[in-house]
Amino acid sequence: MSAPRFGRIGEGPAAPPGGEAFSELLAGGGARVVRIASRGHADAEGAWYDQAEDEFVLLLAGAARLEFAEGTARALAPGDWAVIPARCRHRVAWTDPGRETLWLAVHLPPH
Amino acid sequence: MSAPRFGRIGEGPAAPPGGEAFSELLAGGGARVVRIASRGHADAEGAWYDQAEDEFVLLLAGAARLEFAEGTARALAPGDWAVIPARCRHRVAWTDPGRETLWLAVHLPPH
Repeated sequence: MSAPRFGRIGEGPAAPPGGEAFSELLAGGGARVVRIASRGHADAEGAWYDQAEDEFVLLLAGAARLEFAEGTARALAPGDWAVIPARCRHRVAWTDPGRETLWLAVHLPPH
Repeated sequence: MSAPRFGRIGEGPAAPPGGEAFSELLAGGGARVVRIASRGHADAEGAWYDQAEDEFVLLLAGAARLEFAEGTARALAPGDWAVIPARCRHRVAWTDPGRETLWLAVHLPPH
């Protein structure tokens, strides 16, 4: 039996200006729990994530906008979550350049 | 390709006084993402969860205390997370009776 681990989600790698910082908090069985800090980061126009796995994201701080290849977009404020099914092409269109945006992302096993 | 889903973590089943309310936000491949609202709930003294899977929990609001069969305990405030490995026996020893405590829990595939 291994011991529990603890942390504070507000403490972790800081996002560089215009960039992102990822840190994996837990992984196993094909699933991953990841902390993402962003500051003004956006994925390139037309650069779609096209994933083999379902993803859950929860915005914890800051502000962001997700865009979907199907033609819709969604602004996210703290407390907003999104489920992005496998093969649902998406990109981060915008994160607030003036403060850090903090996400928790959960990648389910690919299917 | 299925469409994305959205929600607000603060909106969901309310905890009954002294109890808990669970809602599954995403599941697949043996992994689950669950919203848990608690109000004054505690697991019975000596009633340990003994799980086959690793679990990640993030406290989003309220206050709670986790207790471990190994003899330690940990108070959790908003923003605190814990990784509870498989077979690490634990219980919720206390949640604030005066306000709702909100958790995000991620269960990884059993191993």
